Amino acid sequence: MRQSFLFTKTRKEAPKDEVSQNAKLLIRAGFIHKELAGVYSYLPLGLRVLEKVVGVIREEMNTIGGQEVTLTALQDKKVWETTGRWDDTVLDVWFKTKLKNDTELGLGTTHEEQLTALMKDYIASYRDLPRYVYQFQTKFRNETRAKSGIMRGREFLMKDLYSFSADQKSHDDFYEKTKQAYSRIFARLGLGDRTYVTFASGGSFSKYSHEFQTVTDAGEDSIFVDENSKVAINKEVFTDETLKSLGLSKEGFVEKKSVEVGNIFSLGTRFSDAFGLNFIASDGTKKPVIMGSYGIGPGRLMGTIVELLSDEKGIIWPLVVAPFKLHLVALFDKEDKVRVYADALYQRLTEQGMEVLYDDRDQRAGEKFADADLIGIPYRVIVSDKTIGENVLEFKNRKTGETTKISETELQKMMAKKTE
Amino acid sequence: MRQSFLFTKTRKEAPKDEVSQNAKLLIRAGFIHKELAGVYSYLPLGLRVLEKVVGVIREEMNTIGGQEVTLTALQDKKVWETTGRWDDTVLDVWFKTKLKNDTELGLGTTHEEQLTALMKDYIASYRDLPRYVYQFQTKFRNETRAKSGIMRGREFLMKDLYSFSADQKSHDDFYEKTKQAYSRIFARLGLGDRTYVTFASGGSFSKYSHEFQTVTDAGEDSIFVDENSKVAINKEVFTDETLKSLGLSKEGFVEKKSVEVGNIFSLGTRFSDAFGLNFIASDGTKKPVIMGSYGIGPGRLMGTIVELLSDEKGIIWPLVVAPFKLHLVALFDKEDKVRVYADALYQRLTEQGMEVLYDDRDQRAGEKFADADLIGIPYRVIVSDKTIGENVLEFKNRKTGETTKISETELQKMMAKKTE
Repeated sequence: MRQSFLFTKTRKEAPKDEVSQNAKLLIRAGFIHKELAGVYSYLPLGLRVLEKVVGVIREEMNTIGGQEVTLTALQDKKVWETTGRWDDTVLDVWFKTKLKNDTELGLGTTHEEQLTALMKDYIASYRDLPRYVYQFQTKFRNETRAKSGIMRGREFLMKDLYSFSADQKSHDDFYEKTKQAYSRIFARLGLGDRTYVTFASGGSFSKYSHEFQTVTDAGEDSIFVDENSKVAINKEVFTDETLKSLGLSKEGFVEKKSVEVGNIFSLGTRFSDAFGLNFIASDGTKKPVIMGSYGIGPGRLMGTIVELLSDEKGIIWPLVVAPFKLHLVALFDKEDKVRVYADALYQRLTEQGMEVLYDDRDQRAGEKFADADLIGIPYRVIVSDKTIGENVLEFKNRKTGETTKISETELQKMMAKKTE
Repeated sequence: MRQSFLFTKTRKEAPKDEVSQNAKLLIRAGFIHKELAGVYSYLPLGLRVLEKVVGVIREEMNTIGGQEVTLTALQDKKVWETTGRWDDTVLDVWFKTKLKNDTELGLGTTHEEQLTALMKDYIASYRDLPRYVYQFQTKFRNETRAKSGIMRGREFLMKDLYSFSADQKSHDDFYEKTKQAYSRIFARLGLGDRTYVTFASGGSFSKYSHEFQTVTDAGEDSIFVDENSKVAINKEVFTDETLKSLGLSKEGFVEKKSVEVGNIFSLGTRFSDAFGLNFIASDGTKKPVIMGSYGIGPGRLMGTIVELLSDEKGIIWPLVVAPFKLHLVALFDKEDKVRVYADALYQRLTEQGMEVLYDDRDQRAGEKFADADLIGIPYRVIVSDKTIGENVLEFKNRKTGETTKISETELQKMMAKKTE
């Protein structure tokens, strides 16, 4: 894409009421726009990143047998009354609204109820199990405070998968599979080293759930981590009892701030009992379906990446989710020599299928470099009167700052090999 | 995809309260699920179709220079008060909700206000124009009645593009370009022949807007069409005055029922004046930006396709939006001969990149054929003991019912050539 085409521009300052580092950088670089506290629009560069995060998650969900759907935001009160969660004191983040005839509706904060009701149409026999259904959908949560940028929104995209299994063994196998899929997602997004599978509070049907917590001072959670064993426990359940039940001692555990980037939860038969989601087992008996729920917020992940992988100049995207793989920065001379050269180079690279953002604006070199640092595309090629004279391209790594002179063929070879 | 993997099943009956043909067929075939009147979830087959409709629209929007964003559903009251449209008597389809501190919020019915406010950050000079910004976003409209299935929802996906131009000439050129892009979209989706560019009521800044109306008895609109000239006029403005201003006579116009599948609208400076969205022109003077808005509902289009392209047996998808291109129906014998053969064929075809739904279920032939007719994949290959014996594949066209015997190589060649 030509940068002159892009409608967004970088800004020196973020809105004054914005306190989070991720939103400040993303707003300044033109990736998102703040509508209200906790409510952000995604602009072209931001949407490209978000879609790539979604793409990585979708691949991994499909790999473990997920089937994609899109449920609705408008929610039937009756469905939620079935589990007693319509009450604002039980679920305290409801946004509610009304039809013209005063019928109350909720805006989906999560979709266990709706999907369990739906699956009654499709699950009748053990032959219909297991099923794994997921969606990327906008959730609405009426948070009292929303100060963490896109890490905690009132309106945000969420991937939620729900599993429907015939017995505990089959459920446990899938639960473990999902845990591994989640670990692959965080590794692919460059957060693997700092993300811990964390014991957290369970529910009626499981002693613990598992959270994926990424260590960062921008997080709102606290976890205890043992770096040697890689075991982590959410502060909420970091008790002598928990340690004992896990066969661990307090020694070695250090408290850290973190953000919950994913969670997986065994639901047992809580929802299937409430809705009567039963099936006829192979022995002819009627049994309730065993369920699990598995969440990841792509926007929160994007915010977490920005918090962790940025420096004083701006963002440094991992290649896999970068809005473009290469930033071609042309420093124009007074004649059109550099422009003609850079236009042709841009065309060749895009024709080869490379995702290139081409800074073809008339701005001065300093401004272009500052903007490129802020936007954070991982690799950069600089073209100027000087590089053309030397018959080279100047190649720069955004993360290390390292600069090398290479040929166009070398550039193609290098970019083809890059994976991070 | 293996049909045994798909969690949905076909049904004999649609819900009793469903009156529209499109929703009845789509529910029976397992494409959508009714949550509430006018509120439908998209299941795996339905989501595949919807995403393909979106893909066609996205391509055409990118071709005319659109840049994709995603704005938010939660809307700031203040922004809407700027144009006087917060009032329920002015905009009568609001869903409204509240933050915990009682701050009122609206759920986006359309996004002129929000985007105009946003663009103030990015448009300052004639150098920043023109800009074309679009999104695919869920709209919420509190319709009193919602009886047309996915053709009129209370929650539905919408592509809305907004244009920002420096002068009337530049606006008019883009308006015309969009008109052509819209015509290409409807042609690609198989609705070209029945879809008319229709004069409809304008606003303060233009005498007429243009609607794209597809003739169908399932539509809620009425238009007058002259088949010879291909001119159409919405009944709302079919007056002597309109005919005179267009230099037409009443003769030849016939009233027809239709559905509005798209609309394009010149907004003039209504929104830019309200928000102070001005720019410095090349002559140094300050001018308001000229705007336009351009809508298409992918779900409504999908519903319209079902209304028009179905028969008594079920849906007949145009190839471009079919959930799969080919339906492989295997009629299993008592040994595993047919299964082994069909499994291998399915694997070869999918490895060649063909989108195949493989009916590998144990159901009887009659049930499989009835399901295939209902689901409506345009081309079908039947594999049985008999076809294996004859060393052929039975190839069936869903639309014409025509059946031919062909080889696997012939199948590959035919499918590669098919465009509709």
